[in-house]
Amino acid sequence: MKLYDSARAPNPRRVRVFLAEKGITVPLEQVDLVALAHKTEAFTAINPIQRVPVLVLDDGAVIAESMAICRYFEALQPEPVLFGRGALEVGQIEMWNRWLELQLLLPISHVFRHSHPAMATREIPQVPAWAEANKPRIEDFLGIFDRALASRPFAAGDRYSVADITGMIAVDFMKPAKLAVPEACAHVRRWHAAVSARPSAGA
Amino acid sequence: MKLYDSARAPNPRRVRVFLAEKGITVPLEQVDLVALAHKTEAFTAINPIQRVPVLVLDDGAVIAESMAICRYFEALQPEPVLFGRGALEVGQIEMWNRWLELQLLLPISHVFRHSHPAMATREIPQVPAWAEANKPRIEDFLGIFDRALASRPFAAGDRYSVADITGMIAVDFMKPAKLAVPEACAHVRRWHAAVSARPSAGA
Repeated sequence: MKLYDSARAPNPRRVRVFLAEKGITVPLEQVDLVALAHKTEAFTAINPIQRVPVLVLDDGAVIAESMAICRYFEALQPEPVLFGRGALEVGQIEMWNRWLELQLLLPISHVFRHSHPAMATREIPQVPAWAEANKPRIEDFLGIFDRALASRPFAAGDRYSVADITGMIAVDFMKPAKLAVPEACAHVRRWHAAVSARPSAGA
Repeated sequence: MKLYDSARAPNPRRVRVFLAEKGITVPLEQVDLVALAHKTEAFTAINPIQRVPVLVLDDGAVIAESMAICRYFEALQPEPVLFGRGALEVGQIEMWNRWLELQLLLPISHVFRHSHPAMATREIPQVPAWAEANKPRIEDFLGIFDRALASRPFAAGDRYSVADITGMIAVDFMKPAKLAVPEACAHVRRWHAAVSARPSAGA
């Protein structure tokens, strides 16, 4: 088994933090995104979408996409449960995991990819107006998330879950995108400090 | 239990088709997106993200997001299995479901929302350059999907799954976005005809 990884990119980190929470170790192979190693013929044969992370099993089977890899390991080793237990918790963790991905991480990624000079060779074409259009959405969602966190410790309830991993990594990705959590979002700041203090955050 | 729905939008249809495959009936309440009913204070109190579908349980618990609602019902009633069985199938169905959402449905949605005159009052600001930037990605992904379907009947393997639902609805959403599956993608066309012939497709 081998996990194609890239140390500084947000999606591979979602898998590394998830594995750290599970106490699972998988051999990593770095893919140099700056050198466009993910666009080579050899890597494209493994993942036609040309993205990391990708898990390759011993028999050659491939699972790409961070959340697909995490679900593979959740099925192999359920404890500690990170995608929920019982229909309601499963649904609510998935709701928050998707919101934190689609309403926070993805808009932040659009700001980064469409405004950062370093991305000019990887995001073709960069559309600066699209970067700008995403900024108010990020602030709106952080307000919604802040109100939810007023009454509970973690993103989807009383238990740490994969939604906290996605959320922590989204907030950390604000810095390279030259964004910041507003001072007014005190609950988001308290939650982010708490999830960042877990040993898994360094993975 | 009540499902807030919108008959013509793609994401609520993902849930309706999923429920039809499961043989589950849930009372629907229509939300008029053209009249901006999803932006009202009353609806925002149910779903702060202001989107459909939303499932409200009898005790008032809320599950928004199409895939979160589907996972709730998969946990309640596993058969027929639509998210996979066993770690490898679970991972590969999630990989394809995500690809069909993030690399196909979402780019098609961006083309529609950022180029269609009817969306000018709902997508503010429309960024026409972003609509254009998505078009080649859709074609690239359809080529990848076509090669995968050359050796199997369904999106993620030998069994119909939630990935087929997402993919069918993505392809159907190409028409209002004024896009079409290239003639060369014969396997995609064969697969789309097959999944569209299932009774659930009319849901």
